[in-house]
Amino acid sequence: MNISRVNNLCSKLASYNLDYAAILPGATMRYLTGLDFHLMERPIVAFFSPQEKPALIAPEFECSKVKSPDDWQLFPWRDEEGVEGAFEACCQSLNLSGKRIGVEELVMRVKEYALLQTFAPGSVTSPLDPLVAAMRSMKDASEIEHIRAAVKLAEGVLQDALSKIKIGMSEKEVAAELLIGLLRAGSETPLPFEPLVQTGITGASPHAPPGDRKLTPGDLLIIDFGGRVKGYASDITRTFAVGQVSDETRRIYNLVAQANRAGREVVRPGLSCQDVDRATRKVIADAGYGQYFTHRTGHGLGLDAHEPPFIVEGDITPLQAGMTFTVEPGIYIPKLGGARIEDDVLVTVDGLESLTTFSRELIIVG
Amino acid sequence: MNISRVNNLCSKLASYNLDYAAILPGATMRYLTGLDFHLMERPIVAFFSPQEKPALIAPEFECSKVKSPDDWQLFPWRDEEGVEGAFEACCQSLNLSGKRIGVEELVMRVKEYALLQTFAPGSVTSPLDPLVAAMRSMKDASEIEHIRAAVKLAEGVLQDALSKIKIGMSEKEVAAELLIGLLRAGSETPLPFEPLVQTGITGASPHAPPGDRKLTPGDLLIIDFGGRVKGYASDITRTFAVGQVSDETRRIYNLVAQANRAGREVVRPGLSCQDVDRATRKVIADAGYGQYFTHRTGHGLGLDAHEPPFIVEGDITPLQAGMTFTVEPGIYIPKLGGARIEDDVLVTVDGLESLTTFSRELIIVG
Repeated sequence: MNISRVNNLCSKLASYNLDYAAILPGATMRYLTGLDFHLMERPIVAFFSPQEKPALIAPEFECSKVKSPDDWQLFPWRDEEGVEGAFEACCQSLNLSGKRIGVEELVMRVKEYALLQTFAPGSVTSPLDPLVAAMRSMKDASEIEHIRAAVKLAEGVLQDALSKIKIGMSEKEVAAELLIGLLRAGSETPLPFEPLVQTGITGASPHAPPGDRKLTPGDLLIIDFGGRVKGYASDITRTFAVGQVSDETRRIYNLVAQANRAGREVVRPGLSCQDVDRATRKVIADAGYGQYFTHRTGHGLGLDAHEPPFIVEGDITPLQAGMTFTVEPGIYIPKLGGARIEDDVLVTVDGLESLTTFSRELIIVG
Repeated sequence: MNISRVNNLCSKLASYNLDYAAILPGATMRYLTGLDFHLMERPIVAFFSPQEKPALIAPEFECSKVKSPDDWQLFPWRDEEGVEGAFEACCQSLNLSGKRIGVEELVMRVKEYALLQTFAPGSVTSPLDPLVAAMRSMKDASEIEHIRAAVKLAEGVLQDALSKIKIGMSEKEVAAELLIGLLRAGSETPLPFEPLVQTGITGASPHAPPGDRKLTPGDLLIIDFGGRVKGYASDITRTFAVGQVSDETRRIYNLVAQANRAGREVVRPGLSCQDVDRATRKVIADAGYGQYFTHRTGHGLGLDAHEPPFIVEGDITPLQAGMTFTVEPGIYIPKLGGARIEDDVLVTVDGLESLTTFSRELIIVG
């Protein structure tokens, strides 16, 4: 249990008009408690409030993961009983009926929501996300060190992989090299996300999974991957040239690199997330490629690979020293291909530090 | 799009008192459509009904994954717009207000649920899970072949790993060997779940992640892992002796093996899931270890590593030829250790075929 984080959460509930926070397995539970349950078919819910000890509903056989049971009110349940009895006992013990309960909208499922409706009648749920985002987006020194370590790990794996990448290899084979490299380098699993490897026309779809397409001279090769250290993710994209590429391809690459630089250069406390998106996007739009930059400029990075704040038009969160996020402009031209350069950056008191330092020159592989 | 599965789903909605099915990224979406989106912070929802073409709300840049756009009514949205406009347009076009909408309770999140409440006012959601379970639990020939291939892949990796497992290795090192083995053997990622490796007292907690404990003579070593082929999972557990183990340890192992055999031997069409749990549990309970078998006997296996039906007291689903599930009794003694033997089985017209064939004798490693 991270007492100071839990106390911080609890102390802020009232100002968000909430009595309780209900947390499922995932990044926020790990952030608050160190507990690393997986969200599966067996419901697990923790409740936090200023008034009493945190409460945990969990399968009995999972409770052995709770290192400090005295910090908790435990409501275990067994497979043959189902979760309902424990859920009812917990809701009654905490007297949740009629209370205002904050839930993470992107984590809590209809299953747990329905259990709350049944066993805490009259309770009102509302989004806990703004409060959680305000806490988790400000990284402390140890969190920054973990992200830095995850970046270093991934950059080492990428450097090693470059010497193994040859013309004729498939996207899947490159992805397997990266995966194995991450594991050998000691990345925790599950990885923040599965490595993306796209070549040539495949690169026109930013989230296309690795396929059977073989590396072909003249293609761009997009590699987007990351590792995990002490729970914290890195997320880096670099785009390479497979042999010699056309002048037009090189021009697109350089435009993305210029947009990436513009985004990083504008970051400083006081500006908003939206400002970073605008500065990045302007470079691409001014060159006439605005319609091909089809996604936001970036996303917060921490225990989740994608978390608030989001570097997108409409997110007016002010940047503060201690925030970590990605800057990852791209250009994606249907039936032609794509390029993306993604850095993981830390907002500092007077600007930014790019945690990723891998070269942004167009490196030729194969 | 798997037209016959979609038609099957739609034809059954009325008998479940539903007008529409709302499906998020995950196993059921892949089962119905072949679409392999990841569930992240950007909402994606598909709607199915007998009256019209399926509808899909998705980020614009993800829509390139839709191989047959003519099969869909697409409602794309861009990062800078947010999902709300597309959600509203979809709900209005389908006229979802006041409709009865089936949702998967363990997949749909409060985010999408709240969007439905907002943009389909008066709609009533209820669990789609029974209908989806009835469909997905009955595997067709191609699905069985994929599970068979995933089992074969994992068993080969386990066989190879045995020769590399030495006294003094840590649980984490064994897990890394298994992970790398799965990838080299061609398992798809993400894996169905992270390999579990537990030795000695760690084995008392069935879901304990791999740690730094080193393989020590006299310990039992539990390995629980699986691979993925064409989306389908395998999930196998074997328990090994690290060097020589005590007679009492061997007795516990043999009891688990006997329970596993009893469970497999009772499987045949017409019995219920609960009957299999009872037959398995009886062996362990009769020997006085009932309190230490702390979980259900098994779970369905398919596109999800854990899916209905569940082999547990209270699940009276009748077994039918074509169902696939695990039989995985275990004994977990606090502060001492544990043992588990898990097979993946297929119900046949006259009994069962165990897809896993790895030896269930107590093999000595190290």
